[in-house]
Amino acid sequence: MSATATARSSARRPTPPRRSRAAATGAKKGALDSRRGAFERYFAGVLPGASRVPQELHEAMRYSALSPGKRLRPMLALAACEAVGASWTRALPAAVAVECVHAFSLVHDDLPAMDDDDYRRGRLTTHKKFGEALGVLAGDALLALAFSELSRLESRGVPPKQVVEATRVLARAAGSEELVGGQALDLSAQGRATSARAVREIHLRKTGALIAAALDLGGIAGGASAAQRRTLARAGRELGLAFQIHDDLLNRLSSLGRLGKRSGTDEARGKATYPRAVGEARARLEAARLFQAALGRVLGLGPKARNLGHVVLAVAERDR
Amino acid sequence: MSATATARSSARRPTPPRRSRAAATGAKKGALDSRRGAFERYFAGVLPGASRVPQELHEAMRYSALSPGKRLRPMLALAACEAVGASWTRALPAAVAVECVHAFSLVHDDLPAMDDDDYRRGRLTTHKKFGEALGVLAGDALLALAFSELSRLESRGVPPKQVVEATRVLARAAGSEELVGGQALDLSAQGRATSARAVREIHLRKTGALIAAALDLGGIAGGASAAQRRTLARAGRELGLAFQIHDDLLNRLSSLGRLGKRSGTDEARGKATYPRAVGEARARLEAARLFQAALGRVLGLGPKARNLGHVVLAVAERDR
Repeated sequence: MSATATARSSARRPTPPRRSRAAATGAKKGALDSRRGAFERYFAGVLPGASRVPQELHEAMRYSALSPGKRLRPMLALAACEAVGASWTRALPAAVAVECVHAFSLVHDDLPAMDDDDYRRGRLTTHKKFGEALGVLAGDALLALAFSELSRLESRGVPPKQVVEATRVLARAAGSEELVGGQALDLSAQGRATSARAVREIHLRKTGALIAAALDLGGIAGGASAAQRRTLARAGRELGLAFQIHDDLLNRLSSLGRLGKRSGTDEARGKATYPRAVGEARARLEAARLFQAALGRVLGLGPKARNLGHVVLAVAERDR
Repeated sequence: MSATATARSSARRPTPPRRSRAAATGAKKGALDSRRGAFERYFAGVLPGASRVPQELHEAMRYSALSPGKRLRPMLALAACEAVGASWTRALPAAVAVECVHAFSLVHDDLPAMDDDDYRRGRLTTHKKFGEALGVLAGDALLALAFSELSRLESRGVPPKQVVEATRVLARAAGSEELVGGQALDLSAQGRATSARAVREIHLRKTGALIAAALDLGGIAGGASAAQRRTLARAGRELGLAFQIHDDLLNRLSSLGRLGKRSGTDEARGKATYPRAVGEARARLEAARLFQAALGRVLGLGPKARNLGHVVLAVAERDR
């Protein structure tokens, strides 16, 4: 794996970080790592056990959902809940719900009829490992599980009215005008010249909507006021767009060992990417500007938003 | 279409109806037809317009969901709501949600990686008409829409606590241990000798769960008591199993013009069917027994359950 290590240290960062990596990954890193650990344990307990019938389907769901990842969306949901004044544990079902939707979308996007990817995060994609039928079904079941889990917010003391609102927000973010719609637009834009505005539209739907939903759901679970929800929603859109531009830049730069799939695949496919539409330099600047705007906005929520600020920084600084 | 008409009149009924067709399709037929008409109009208004971006995705969703069908699940939900004493219109969002889940499951089951069907109800399947990627995505979006629509029960006066309960019920019925799980079991049972018990298990998950959910959701929307919900749940399981055995029998008998797809396709594929496991005569008896049990149970709910009884009879008497 020395080639990977070399690639890691020599690759340029797609976007300039706002603070030194040491500061971002210092004292707070431990606290956020332990929170992520708590999330992982909770998530593993929510997913149906691989010994339950139908075993193969449950195995495929666990394989898809528990693959190594940074859990950025759940961490955003948990920290947003804390930022509006509640305990982050209250948002655990929302964090799981968002991650289930994310996992569902990855499994389906990788299918042969879509992006046709064999690898994700350095492992075989779900349909390559379990077959195409189980790829479709595992994605379907993860989407259903998201709503099942979201309804468990009630048992954490979230008022039913807010749970219904959370359902509405997540269903919209996952649906035909946002996440799934973004994938449809992305596929139809392949191989065509696409304007910066059109790429922005795709990115906002395909990636921005679910990241915004993660923040919004965390806020709803924490009893956010209307003003707090507006702030989280705006920050979510900025962060979501920044995230995807950053992703486009990483996709350009990275090698198999870093992103876990072949680099430059977006370009090889003629995908609509931001660097392709506006040039790499402008894309870099735009991502930095958006990360900064989102960071400023969430920090404006007050002292309890510090952890949320750290998660936003972690999103900006991720290198895979 | 004269061949179809001939087939229709000469085919044997898979299960003996409990009353004469004339009685079942007489006075009440008009009332139920007008209710179905109201449902169709409401449903068409809920689905995103085909002119909304992404147009092709929305067209594919409308094509999948608005294809000609009997709308048995929505009619069950509406009548169950009435049976427990509320106005049937209160359950319209639940009826749409159930039909969206049903449409989602048909679109995905038809995919090449699954049953690989080119026709459904006499029309091209969604993926044949719009391509495989849009087949996957239209199904996904319909599943998300189901939960979005379900949250609208609140605006019909259903208390939020009951809306959360409805979400839980539908997510479970759609998920890995019920509908999607049933499809996984069905696929893995293909070409294998399957016991009557195993077929029953598959049928209960793949078909029974959503039919039971239709009744349960209608009841929840109508403010059903715990006892009423138990009755509806039991009737739902009986009716769901009867429905699928009936379907197996129809699949054996019917020709392209009747079921809208080539007949006997289940057997050609070596699918686990009830007549195959226990013989046609026993399957017929079992379906009749279950229909009868479900009918008795729902009529026991009282005089307001009459329409529900008529819908159960319509399910028992369907010939395609």
